Amino acid sequence: MIDVAKAAGVGLGTVSRVVNGGAGVREQTASRVRAAIDQLGFQRNEVARALRPGKKSSSLALVLGDLTNPFYATIAKAALEVAGQDGFAVVLGSVDEDPEGEKRAIQELIGRQVAGLMIVPDQGDHSYLAGAGIPVVFVDRPAHGIDADIVTVDNQGGGRLATEHLLGQGHRRIAILLAPSYHTTGRRLRGYRLAHRGAGMEVDESLVVQLPEGTAEAAEKATRELMHRPDPPTGLFASTNFVAEGVLRALREVDSQPAVVGFDDFRMADMLPTPVTVVASDTAELGRIAARLLLDRASGTDDRAPQRIVLPCALIQRGSGERPPT
Amino acid sequence: MIDVAKAAGVGLGTVSRVVNGGAGVREQTASRVRAAIDQLGFQRNEVARALRPGKKSSSLALVLGDLTNPFYATIAKAALEVAGQDGFAVVLGSVDEDPEGEKRAIQELIGRQVAGLMIVPDQGDHSYLAGAGIPVVFVDRPAHGIDADIVTVDNQGGGRLATEHLLGQGHRRIAILLAPSYHTTGRRLRGYRLAHRGAGMEVDESLVVQLPEGTAEAAEKATRELMHRPDPPTGLFASTNFVAEGVLRALREVDSQPAVVGFDDFRMADMLPTPVTVVASDTAELGRIAARLLLDRASGTDDRAPQRIVLPCALIQRGSGERPPT
Repeated sequence: MIDVAKAAGVGLGTVSRVVNGGAGVREQTASRVRAAIDQLGFQRNEVARALRPGKKSSSLALVLGDLTNPFYATIAKAALEVAGQDGFAVVLGSVDEDPEGEKRAIQELIGRQVAGLMIVPDQGDHSYLAGAGIPVVFVDRPAHGIDADIVTVDNQGGGRLATEHLLGQGHRRIAILLAPSYHTTGRRLRGYRLAHRGAGMEVDESLVVQLPEGTAEAAEKATRELMHRPDPPTGLFASTNFVAEGVLRALREVDSQPAVVGFDDFRMADMLPTPVTVVASDTAELGRIAARLLLDRASGTDDRAPQRIVLPCALIQRGSGERPPT
Repeated sequence: MIDVAKAAGVGLGTVSRVVNGGAGVREQTASRVRAAIDQLGFQRNEVARALRPGKKSSSLALVLGDLTNPFYATIAKAALEVAGQDGFAVVLGSVDEDPEGEKRAIQELIGRQVAGLMIVPDQGDHSYLAGAGIPVVFVDRPAHGIDADIVTVDNQGGGRLATEHLLGQGHRRIAILLAPSYHTTGRRLRGYRLAHRGAGMEVDESLVVQLPEGTAEAAEKATRELMHRPDPPTGLFASTNFVAEGVLRALREVDSQPAVVGFDDFRMADMLPTPVTVVASDTAELGRIAARLLLDRASGTDDRAPQRIVLPCALIQRGSGERPPT
C-alpha cells in the first residue's frame, strides 16, 4: 500500500480511508487512489488487509501426503475453499512417509510467516511445533509431543463396522491388509479386533497382514500370497483406498472370490465388475472443519482448549462386501 | 536471520559466515549461532536463502482447477516436487471455470510476492499479467493477451489419434462429447475433424455434442440421449476423463455397446468391466516441465524468448476402443 500511496501522491492514511469507504476524502483524491490501486493490480480487500494493524499474514500452510491420493486431494480442495472464503491463501507442502522431510517442510513454511498450520502428520515427535507461535491443527492423525487441535475420522468405529459386516455375512476367516503402521490403520485394526471379540471369536494373527508400504502394488502382492495359501480367507478388509485397489487387482486372477470391504470411498468404486463396498467418512468435511478451526484459531475468535473432533464412518454396501463365504 | 544474530549476540555477517561453512568464525561463536538457529526453528538453507542478496521470494504460485480431478492433482504434485528440490514453496489457488474468480486469485497471489506464476488458465484476457513483473508459465492451455511460456499436450494430435483409431475399426458414426469450449477440447475436436477428413468422410454435426459442463453427470445425460436416438453412434470419443466416466455410466443401461476412447488416463480405467482405451500424455511430466521452466525464468538462468512446449499423446488400447461397429 506504500506503492499505492506513492503513486497517488497521498499519505497512507488517505489510502486506508479510501479503501475503507472514502469518508473524509475528496472525490478527486479518492479517484486518484483508486486508479493507483487498479494500476498496481491490487485488490481492494488485499490492500485493506495489508493496512489492518496486527494482521501480519493471510496465508495458511497445509502439509499433507501424495496429492494424487484422492483422500489428500479432497482435504486440500476443501481447505482451499474455506481459506479462500476468508481471503486466505494456502501454501502447500507435500511429504509422504518421510518424518525428516516433513519437519524440514514445516519449518520452511513457518519461516514463510503463515498464520497457521494444518498438517496430516507423519509419525514421530512434533513437539518442535509447540514453539512455532502459530496455531496448528492436525488432520486425520494426531501428533505426538504437542497438545493441539485434532480432526480425525472414527477409524476404530469404521474398522469395527467393516469387520462386523463381514462377520454378519457368515465369514469366519477375515484378513485385514494394513498400510504401514500409521495411527489410522492401527485404529482400524483395533476395530477389527473388537468386532471379533464382540462375536466371541479369536483373531487368526496370520490373517493380520502388515504391508511394507501403502501402495496398490504391495497390497496386490500380499493378496496373491493370501489367496494361494491352503486356507485362504473368505473375507478381506482393505484398510485404505490404495490397498483396496491392489486387493481387487490381485483377485482378478483368483478363482475363489472373497468378500471385500474397503476403507475410504474412491472414484469408480461403483463401476467395477463387482461394485465395491466401503466404509467411508466425509473427507471434504474433514478438510472443511479443520480449515475452519484453524482460521478461527488464527483470528483469535476461538480460544477454547485444544479440541478433538471425530467424524463418523458409514458403510456403503455395493456388492463386494456382501459375497457369502465359500 | 536478524533474530538469529540477535539471539546469538553477533552481527549478521557472522551468521552468514556460519551458515555458509563457518570460515573465519571461532568455534565457540559458531556453535552459539547454530544453537540460535536451532532454537528459532530455522533451517540452514532457509537462513542462507534469506541472507542471499536480491533473493526476495522463494514461493511459486500455482493456479489450477479442481484438485479432486486427478489431472490437476498430478500437475500440482509434480510442481511441488520440482519446486521443493529448489527450496521453493508453492502457494496454491484453485478456481474452476470462473474467469473473474481466477483473476482475483491471481492478483491476490501476486500481492503475496511470489517469484513466479504457474497457471492452468481459464478463458478470457490475461493481459493484466504482463505488468505483474514476475515470470508466468501457462500449463495445459494458452492464455490471451500475453506472450508467455506455454506447456501443453498435443490435443489436436491426440484427438486425431483417438478418432483415427475408431475409424480404423470400421466405425462410421463416431460421436465426440466435448466439455465446455476450452482451448483443449477445441483442439481435440479439430483432431476429430482432421481424422474424418483424412478418411474422406464428412462429420455428422449432430454427433458433435457440446456439454453444458465438464462433469460426469452432464456426459452421462448426453450419452443417454445419443444412444436413444434412432441412429445412435457406434463409437464415442470422450474428450476428458470426467466425460469418459459419464459416458461409461450411461452405457451401463444401454443394450448396444459402442466403442469408447477417452482422453487422459485415469485410475481404475483398466479395472472396469471393459477396460477403457484412452489417448493420454504424461501429465506429471507436463507439471514438471512447467515448474522447471518457471524456476529457471525466476532465477534468470533461462532468458530465451517465450517457449511453447508440446507433449505428445499416445494411444493406450485396453478393450473399449476396439469394439467393432454394431
